[in-house]
Amino acid sequence: AMIGLSSYAGVMESLMNSAEEQQPSSPLANSWSKKQESSKNQKPKSVGGFVLVHAGAGYHSESKAKEYKHVCKRACQRAVDQLKAGALAVEAVAAALVELEDSPFTNAGMGSNLNLSGEIECDASIMDGKSLHYGAVGSISGIKNPVLVANRLLSEAQKGKLSAGRIPPCFLVGRGAHDWAVSHGIPPCLSEKMATKFSLSAYKRNKRKMELAEKMDTGHNQTKKRRQSSENENGSGCLDTVGAVVVDLEGNVAAAVSSGGLAMKHSGRVGQAAHYGCGCWAENACNMNPYSTAVSTSGCGEHLIRTMLARECSAAMQSEDAHQALLEAMQNKFISSPFLASEDRVLGGVIVLRCCRCVEAQPSQNIQGILVEFLWSHTTESMCVGYMSAQDSKAKLLCGDLLRNPRASPVKLGLKQYEFPLTAGGKSHSCC
Amino acid sequence: AMIGLSSYAGVMESLMNSAEEQQPSSPLANSWSKKQESSKNQKPKSVGGFVLVHAGAGYHSESKAKEYKHVCKRACQRAVDQLKAGALAVEAVAAALVELEDSPFTNAGMGSNLNLSGEIECDASIMDGKSLHYGAVGSISGIKNPVLVANRLLSEAQKGKLSAGRIPPCFLVGRGAHDWAVSHGIPPCLSEKMATKFSLSAYKRNKRKMELAEKMDTGHNQTKKRRQSSENENGSGCLDTVGAVVVDLEGNVAAAVSSGGLAMKHSGRVGQAAHYGCGCWAENACNMNPYSTAVSTSGCGEHLIRTMLARECSAAMQSEDAHQALLEAMQNKFISSPFLASEDRVLGGVIVLRCCRCVEAQPSQNIQGILVEFLWSHTTESMCVGYMSAQDSKAKLLCGDLLRNPRASPVKLGLKQYEFPLTAGGKSHSCC
Repeated sequence: AMIGLSSYAGVMESLMNSAEEQQPSSPLANSWSKKQESSKNQKPKSVGGFVLVHAGAGYHSESKAKEYKHVCKRACQRAVDQLKAGALAVEAVAAALVELEDSPFTNAGMGSNLNLSGEIECDASIMDGKSLHYGAVGSISGIKNPVLVANRLLSEAQKGKLSAGRIPPCFLVGRGAHDWAVSHGIPPCLSEKMATKFSLSAYKRNKRKMELAEKMDTGHNQTKKRRQSSENENGSGCLDTVGAVVVDLEGNVAAAVSSGGLAMKHSGRVGQAAHYGCGCWAENACNMNPYSTAVSTSGCGEHLIRTMLARECSAAMQSEDAHQALLEAMQNKFISSPFLASEDRVLGGVIVLRCCRCVEAQPSQNIQGILVEFLWSHTTESMCVGYMSAQDSKAKLLCGDLLRNPRASPVKLGLKQYEFPLTAGGKSHSCC
Repeated sequence: AMIGLSSYAGVMESLMNSAEEQQPSSPLANSWSKKQESSKNQKPKSVGGFVLVHAGAGYHSESKAKEYKHVCKRACQRAVDQLKAGALAVEAVAAALVELEDSPFTNAGMGSNLNLSGEIECDASIMDGKSLHYGAVGSISGIKNPVLVANRLLSEAQKGKLSAGRIPPCFLVGRGAHDWAVSHGIPPCLSEKMATKFSLSAYKRNKRKMELAEKMDTGHNQTKKRRQSSENENGSGCLDTVGAVVVDLEGNVAAAVSSGGLAMKHSGRVGQAAHYGCGCWAENACNMNPYSTAVSTSGCGEHLIRTMLARECSAAMQSEDAHQALLEAMQNKFISSPFLASEDRVLGGVIVLRCCRCVEAQPSQNIQGILVEFLWSHTTESMCVGYMSAQDSKAKLLCGDLLRNPRASPVKLGLKQYEFPLTAGGKSHSCC
């Protein structure tokens, strides 16, 4: 049921304008009309929805790519299972994140990078495009699935004020975040259990590297030292934030992101995964915005924070040409951003979902549909993504140096499209 | 040397268009030409720069207002002392914040609100409009001046990468933030010393109130309980975040904010004062933006976070009419924001500085000047602000229900203007 581009050349073709899609004999249109007919007897809940996940922008070796594909596949399946059961986008996106966090190979939840003190401290956030609520945790230890704490903060905040008029928090950090989670029924997890053989050996390797670098630099002045040591690092698997974006069968969008943070970060450092507007963003369409958008980012946290990349990409996606919009956003709001003027290399990647309503292939039947355009883009060597619709039997996976842009641009970018019929009940949020 | 409106009616008059300002005999022009003449023998450093501070948007009793005016006055003086000594905006704004934090009456640094566990956890951030660098600390304990840690993070990040190519953090929280501060020479402070008689008695009062509210609500269901208790609270002095915005004699802007957070917040809760784009924002003019802007916010953290109010106000100030721009931003991006659709009362305040270059009152001499427009706006009952230029002998202070807007708008808003001649060396940051 994928209606995409046959090649990944990165050139956008509008579904609505392409001749192929107008044929009433397209397989998708057929499957829909069948579903529409049968829906009188069955629940219509199983027909729609879509998930796109990432397991980080960075550098991925062959062996790692294989593992990442596996976990992306499982994450897509989890989200689709939720969507088929009638879950809203925000629940489905949380389910995908749990799977991504549980993998010992990703830098999120289990198997997260260790910090300078040899501890695991995680960041995660989630945003619901329907309510525009947001929840985040930063630098949290001893919790297997940080995204579940973020999600719980989001849902608690939606219930309104606490006793004595206190406003519920949307962002908790450190020990307080851990204690809040446990008091809300999220089980603690021994930190030792969250470290893996892989993360422990990486920590030892990094520690040696650091000591060596600092020894070698003795005698150089501070500035010189910092410049010299900045060259041959980065991208070595330390940027594998995970994330997902989902549209549910009502057309609501949601986004989430989770990360163990940079390897050898200082204790207490919070990265983009817990920064509002930086790690993820989701906004349903409203009378000012024709498109629902959802974005999840990956890469060097400080670069993604200072450019507020998730929100910038989301805002950019309101212009007509999705491919061009993301290309320009990555170029102007990230690579050439004045906020990163002093940086030599700008490392990051995004996955983007945008949806709008459309009248379907058989206009005579006046079936409303959701047109989903989904994109990924990165400036890093490689990126891993997976995607799946509620109609697919399994996820499609991509990992590597994805889609170099035709023109000489450092931005790698891909776009695909997918459509599903709209279930009654999908609503835009109220808007000014 | 104030060139402002004689009343605070909140109607903007453009300095450049008003007849009064065109007279070459205006006192300001005279004082400038005198300064220009004498500058051949003296340092020209003492002529320019401006600071605007706030001690929170909320409710201020008569007795409290008096204290707040005192501390705002001292904070302005500190910043101006720095400016006169040739400091950049970012250093001057940090100096103002230290004074605001040191007051036992403000909810920042010394005398901060206690959290649910009876502890003090502070948030602070600072942004430099010249380099566009940013530093923040969240939920930090045992540090007398959280803004100094944020400022140190900012300046350390400007030095480039750490050993082994590690990227320096821009945001640290909790214990890790405390340890980083101490290891960078910022002295720790016993938490007991940071609590005041006032904050301790407020804690006891709040604790009783909470227990009472929870007792009274026994038997009601959760939702009902939450709704009922949300009415008669808030605004009771718990929103007194402090902040400042500065333009230096080269025309660079900077902004900072510091807060002890909401009274009885959950441990680990981070408010807008440590959220990028939410607590403060500063951006020098560039080829895309004619105005340099700096914003600092106050009010209910979660409202300011979800609307990203500092950055939204900053962006809005690029349109020509400053008064109208801020009025619309407060109305559309805050009070009527779709992000706060579910909130019954939206509580917040902002101070805003915007500057542009202009040719001065005596165009024949071709003296370049900086036109400073400064504004404040709040939806809360009252707000306290102070402002001072490098030419003033003391700060001007306002505290209370400031400037209800002429039309029936819940936004209270004021605007004033000030000009000073530009010192060579002021530069816009590079921009796309």
